[in-house]
Amino acid sequence: MPTSTPTPPTTRTNLDDVRLARAYLLRVAEPPAPHLTGFVTRHGPIAAAERIQADDVPDQVRAETTARRDVDRAEQDMATAAAIGATLLIPEDEAWPAWAFAALDLARARGANWAGQPLAVWARGTADLAISTDEAVAVVGARAATAYGEHIAAEFAHALATAGMTVVSGAAYGVDGAAHRGALAAGGPTVAVLGCGIDVPYPAGHSALLGSIAKSGLIISEYPPGTPPARHRFLVRNRLIAALAAGTLVVEAGRRSGSRNTAATAAALGRVVMAVPGPVTSAMSLGCHELIRSGDAHLVSSVADVIESVGRLGADLATVPPQALRETDGLSDQALRVHEALNRKSGQSVEQIAIKSGIPIERVRATLPGLELTAHAERCETGWRRRSPQPT
Amino acid sequence: MPTSTPTPPTTRTNLDDVRLARAYLLRVAEPPAPHLTGFVTRHGPIAAAERIQADDVPDQVRAETTARRDVDRAEQDMATAAAIGATLLIPEDEAWPAWAFAALDLARARGANWAGQPLAVWARGTADLAISTDEAVAVVGARAATAYGEHIAAEFAHALATAGMTVVSGAAYGVDGAAHRGALAAGGPTVAVLGCGIDVPYPAGHSALLGSIAKSGLIISEYPPGTPPARHRFLVRNRLIAALAAGTLVVEAGRRSGSRNTAATAAALGRVVMAVPGPVTSAMSLGCHELIRSGDAHLVSSVADVIESVGRLGADLATVPPQALRETDGLSDQALRVHEALNRKSGQSVEQIAIKSGIPIERVRATLPGLELTAHAERCETGWRRRSPQPT
Repeated sequence: MPTSTPTPPTTRTNLDDVRLARAYLLRVAEPPAPHLTGFVTRHGPIAAAERIQADDVPDQVRAETTARRDVDRAEQDMATAAAIGATLLIPEDEAWPAWAFAALDLARARGANWAGQPLAVWARGTADLAISTDEAVAVVGARAATAYGEHIAAEFAHALATAGMTVVSGAAYGVDGAAHRGALAAGGPTVAVLGCGIDVPYPAGHSALLGSIAKSGLIISEYPPGTPPARHRFLVRNRLIAALAAGTLVVEAGRRSGSRNTAATAAALGRVVMAVPGPVTSAMSLGCHELIRSGDAHLVSSVADVIESVGRLGADLATVPPQALRETDGLSDQALRVHEALNRKSGQSVEQIAIKSGIPIERVRATLPGLELTAHAERCETGWRRRSPQPT
Repeated sequence: MPTSTPTPPTTRTNLDDVRLARAYLLRVAEPPAPHLTGFVTRHGPIAAAERIQADDVPDQVRAETTARRDVDRAEQDMATAAAIGATLLIPEDEAWPAWAFAALDLARARGANWAGQPLAVWARGTADLAISTDEAVAVVGARAATAYGEHIAAEFAHALATAGMTVVSGAAYGVDGAAHRGALAAGGPTVAVLGCGIDVPYPAGHSALLGSIAKSGLIISEYPPGTPPARHRFLVRNRLIAALAAGTLVVEAGRRSGSRNTAATAAALGRVVMAVPGPVTSAMSLGCHELIRSGDAHLVSSVADVIESVGRLGADLATVPPQALRETDGLSDQALRVHEALNRKSGQSVEQIAIKSGIPIERVRATLPGLELTAHAERCETGWRRRSPQPT
């Protein structure tokens, strides 16, 4: 179960309130709800929830939330989740994969309304989402996979897990299931992202598999407990799979395949897209071959190829042109708050920043190197100070 | 059998002498013999042969020819060839694939000593080499092909032949043989390029196949009759396969494969290189996957893909930077002679150019559009005049 940093009682209480607010917000609009997401970013989850309930919101936010405004089942959802060992993971938690999800905000800042971070995710399992997705590869593919596809998915996932990488997938039949199983067989953590409620046993034949994943890995979903699976939810869910992994590997895909949606999403997020070739006589390899031929995916024929391709991620990210964005686009709420606490002229200690921002000292310490990486902060003799990314 | 343009008796006699001289030259040095090739280009085949026999040659040419200088079996070779229905096809013949082979001279001009046109080729069969390679695809691959590889080679070759393209290959076991058979099954012409004498039944199990190829297509070799097959000859031969085709398709290839040599040669000649993917579990697809992954080959999974890829050739050739070359590099002997007959200032009629160059009028007419394409000649009100390619 994800745990949050030990913090003083007042902060703990505040975190519980934040968690309840976010549970409410997750149910009040169907993701992705870009205006709601922006509204929460600007006002914080507690104020945002209160204003929605009071109908004190801009029209665009109202359009997204009005239908479910009065449905406050946050405590009930928490209880339902707790009954199956699940909790609500929120951006304020240490286990929140802030840097993985930052790509979703970057994409939204560039106009991709389908993107944007989830407001929170329901999580069931033992793995820490931030740590386990630090080096992760998404392995996705057709539900109607061939024996070849399932074999490759399991083999690659097993080898990736053995190499210390976390396999992220969607728990579907076919490639997804084989990938999770391969990772589990290697004793590695694996993360399943669902397109339904965390408590919904879907697909029915994967109940035992989902149980195994929860045991050593993690199952997450941004849908409230009880939400039934739906095609559009799988597509929305795909952005989380793509964002959580450094690269997305398509093992088998037909000409029209949900996996290609994940691949396109991964590409839009600046992630590496890879595809495994297969016999050209196999309809289930058509989508992979098209991705490779069009240049949308790297061909990978071994796990060594995957690791080499994913290694290119750093270089890819480094070329994101900062001048196309507002300087704080792409930062999580928490990073924004740390950033705002920095001075431009004089450095401050981590302790000072923690007090000023109200963010626990451990999170401040964890957040600053990332801000340095994106040129939002820099070290100086007296500690840390604010820096603005320079147009290049 | 290739035929030459009907020409006046004097020219015919001259052509016979040229043919004998070239038969001598083909035997006097092991191809590729870059210095000999340059020497023949400068002096013409008859004078070149005479000077070699008189030992009146530069040192580098002597080094290439001294061992076999006194071996003049030209007439005997012609007779041996004639006995199996083969003739010597020379650059002075209309059926000489001048534009296809021009890429070999271009590559040589850029320093690739392995390149350079053949001085002539022995040819057995009914197809016209120039016409049949006007739209040709080389289909090559492993001798130890899998059932999948042979199936794909035959299927693709069949479909290419049906689409009016000539399949060029090397008559070896495995992919080569399957490709020839597929083309023959579609009733299309297919061209086999050998790494041994035209009269050498190699590989032994392909005697019947070679007979079928000769019936409707063409078998060619630059090696004199009786020359045994050898590994280095296959590599030298590969440049002809690559040059004759607009694109080279590798169907199956192991990690160290002769097909990858053909692919590299094709790339060096500015040809399109394509590879068919297969199961990543197959060692015979390793080479193809490496070619695709490294960007050295386009992935093709259908004949439509092949035709689309080959269609890119025009654009590729158009980007050859002319300033890197002497202005007449890459021209065949014949094109050079036509080029030299042109005036810079005033146009001449095709008839005038034919008389001045000594090249049959039909060949002049066929050569000029190509010279126009490479900016060596241009049309004007009074006919054709010389033009120099401009550095861009």
